[in-house]
Amino acid sequence: MSAQVSNEACPLTEVLDHVAGKWSIGILVAAAHGPVRFTELERAIAGISRRMLTLNLRKLERDGLLIRTVYPTVPPKVEYSLTPMARELHATLSGLVGWAERHRVDITNARAAYDAAAEPAT
Amino acid sequence: MSAQVSNEACPLTEVLDHVAGKWSIGILVAAAHGPVRFTELERAIAGISRRMLTLNLRKLERDGLLIRTVYPTVPPKVEYSLTPMARELHATLSGLVGWAERHRVDITNARAAYDAAAEPAT
Repeated sequence: MSAQVSNEACPLTEVLDHVAGKWSIGILVAAAHGPVRFTELERAIAGISRRMLTLNLRKLERDGLLIRTVYPTVPPKVEYSLTPMARELHATLSGLVGWAERHRVDITNARAAYDAAAEPAT
Repeated sequence: MSAQVSNEACPLTEVLDHVAGKWSIGILVAAAHGPVRFTELERAIAGISRRMLTLNLRKLERDGLLIRTVYPTVPPKVEYSLTPMARELHATLSGLVGWAERHRVDITNARAAYDAAAEPAT
């Protein structure tokens, strides 16, 4: 184990807590193509609840990854967009999404094989 | 919001639950440079408990991302290494680590600014 490995792992555990959650990544990917509204995010991210979306939007705004813009219309229109710092993450997150798409079936198969091997012989 | 966004977001929430946790990423990064032992991982990943390390190793093995090799020595020697599928993730995870390192201070500053703005005026 090289010192390099430890150095890599440390900032990860600190920062990734905020960036690498499945909902955070979903929001950042969904907002990457331009400003989006709450309801658009809700539709784009399968399985997210309104409460989890609200909490994660606030967290990402606090971390300086999302900009929340309120337009003074009636009713007020609210849009979320990525900050330059979050834009830098886009290629990385797209890589993660691409990998997940390519290996979905592999992962499902690996789990089935693992569970079958773990079953007691009858 | 384009259809593409929804298509991107779906496999994410399913697969990322297993790959994108801060501990999973820490383990995959720490094991990327060659086979590692439990105690080496424990040292490399700041703040992980033995229990969380054990659980995450088992999860990553089940997902087909880690290979667990037991050598028939006394006491038995156990080593963990990445599968080819996990190796493909390495560039992406390194990108994430690099980003986290570059923007650690920015994120800390963004949080402080957000919290200061949220404080009630006195």
